Amino acid sequence: MGKHLIIGGAGFIGSNLSRLLCEQGEAIHILDNLSLGRESHVHALVEAGKASLQVADATIPEDLNTAFTNYGPFDDVYHLAANSDIQKSATNPDIELQNTFLTTYQVLSAMRRFACKKLVFSSTSAIYGDKQNELIGEDCPGIKPISYYGGAKLASEAFISSFAFMNDMQVWICRFPNVVGDNATHGAVFDFIQSLRLNKTQLTILGDGSQTKPYLYVRDLVDAILYIRNVAHNAYNVFNIGVDSATSVDRIAHIVTEEMNLPDVTFHYTGGNVGWKGDVPRFSYDNSRLRGLGWKPAFESDEAVRLATRAILSGTKD
Amino acid sequence: MGKHLIIGGAGFIGSNLSRLLCEQGEAIHILDNLSLGRESHVHALVEAGKASLQVADATIPEDLNTAFTNYGPFDDVYHLAANSDIQKSATNPDIELQNTFLTTYQVLSAMRRFACKKLVFSSTSAIYGDKQNELIGEDCPGIKPISYYGGAKLASEAFISSFAFMNDMQVWICRFPNVVGDNATHGAVFDFIQSLRLNKTQLTILGDGSQTKPYLYVRDLVDAILYIRNVAHNAYNVFNIGVDSATSVDRIAHIVTEEMNLPDVTFHYTGGNVGWKGDVPRFSYDNSRLRGLGWKPAFESDEAVRLATRAILSGTKD
Repeated sequence: MGKHLIIGGAGFIGSNLSRLLCEQGEAIHILDNLSLGRESHVHALVEAGKASLQVADATIPEDLNTAFTNYGPFDDVYHLAANSDIQKSATNPDIELQNTFLTTYQVLSAMRRFACKKLVFSSTSAIYGDKQNELIGEDCPGIKPISYYGGAKLASEAFISSFAFMNDMQVWICRFPNVVGDNATHGAVFDFIQSLRLNKTQLTILGDGSQTKPYLYVRDLVDAILYIRNVAHNAYNVFNIGVDSATSVDRIAHIVTEEMNLPDVTFHYTGGNVGWKGDVPRFSYDNSRLRGLGWKPAFESDEAVRLATRAILSGTKD
Repeated sequence: MGKHLIIGGAGFIGSNLSRLLCEQGEAIHILDNLSLGRESHVHALVEAGKASLQVADATIPEDLNTAFTNYGPFDDVYHLAANSDIQKSATNPDIELQNTFLTTYQVLSAMRRFACKKLVFSSTSAIYGDKQNELIGEDCPGIKPISYYGGAKLASEAFISSFAFMNDMQVWICRFPNVVGDNATHGAVFDFIQSLRLNKTQLTILGDGSQTKPYLYVRDLVDAILYIRNVAHNAYNVFNIGVDSATSVDRIAHIVTEEMNLPDVTFHYTGGNVGWKGDVPRFSYDNSRLRGLGWKPAFESDEAVRLATRAILSGTKD
């Protein structure tokens, strides 16, 4: 096998993917602007000579040229660079234009320039919009994102589709659910821990706590990504990656307080059935396509939340 | 009624829409960078005091600010600015990023800044990709554009969906088929006439001439756009605009030579079943949603081609 380019490879999911690829003996180059990613997430891989790290911006064509010219050629590109904080961009859509959409466009454009023909893309359940009463399959009709993040990811998929056809690329679109675990930089588990470390008696919960979503452990997620990359052989592959169970925000709060040995925390709710405008309060994936390919997660949703809580609390690299 | 902002209002379809709105007594402001549009297309409207024209670029926020500040407030925005030459952008996707996608993003962003809540958008059959064996309905699964143009329009729809939800906008997405008529600046009818004016005995036809698509007369199209805008009352409205008949490229060549009284033209074919990479050789719309709303076109596809040929030949404003 040749070398892999991991865009956003020092971020939450990117660093977990980078670690797994290195564990499998693969050679990788990581491009990350360290805006959400951290050097510490991949320091050990770089120190061990298993990965190279280029601190650079995937929206800048020259930075991508440097990656392909100085560190390539690459067998494939894993593009995971994006704004991952939906709540933050709700008041500033330019964040999604720049960090989620234009990263994708420029990565595609660079792949076209360098005739790199294989792309693995990190998409999301947020592209589907609010489909609370459906089991969401990959080809469901009427896909209408309601958050700027979901819009930017669906816009990315739109351009990926056309670049793939026009340049004979092979593509693996992986649509992530909520993901928890080691190296997270935000999200309910992470936020609750941060908050409870500051105040051990009170916890503010966005919404009414009933928002319920499938949470996948990040180790399961990156395992699924590589499984899809290696086993799905169509020119254009689209997969939901999920877990059939789900966890409410209230349940997350209870798991976190349990793991932190804080039995007397008082919960306060901001009210309403969503955490913020653009939040989808509940969704369920139809995971049959990926099950049919032969993959299933090791951990159910509640277990994933508990493992993630322990990983973040211990600060281990797991 | 208040005033309407027509982005790209001096272009092919935009100028026809501007004229119809003015005929109906509406007040309009046209913003156009005149890259594909022409001042002559709307000169009469401006001279008659029915429209104002701002030569400006919809990708530049300050230009849009000027429109809203100096010529607004607007009841609604009709956004028709785009690269409309799919063949041209096939070798340069940045044209679609800039002229088709970023125009939309910046228009949405300006509407958000100025709290303008109603958007009519010019989308396209090209978003669907290659679906030769289907009657394409608005909610068909597996939408996968194959041209950069189709990718940029679908990416635009993705952001429109999220801006609409986040800012409580009402939206009318109109997905155009092939459109012919007065003020066209490219396309098979236009290109054949240009070519035959230079050489009255030979005509080169891209592909094998069998590409067959529904052609809608531009007067029918703009009539449908205003019909949809006025009659469809959902928060988010998506409509194919089409005609149930279709015309092959060969048939277009015959109609054009007939109308030009050139019975002895020799046709040459570049071969293959598409005009260029990214071209969809044939498609058929399911037009039932718009028929159910109560609208149908006045002209069938062949008639539209013939009327367009006559309009372009006579150079009239029809």
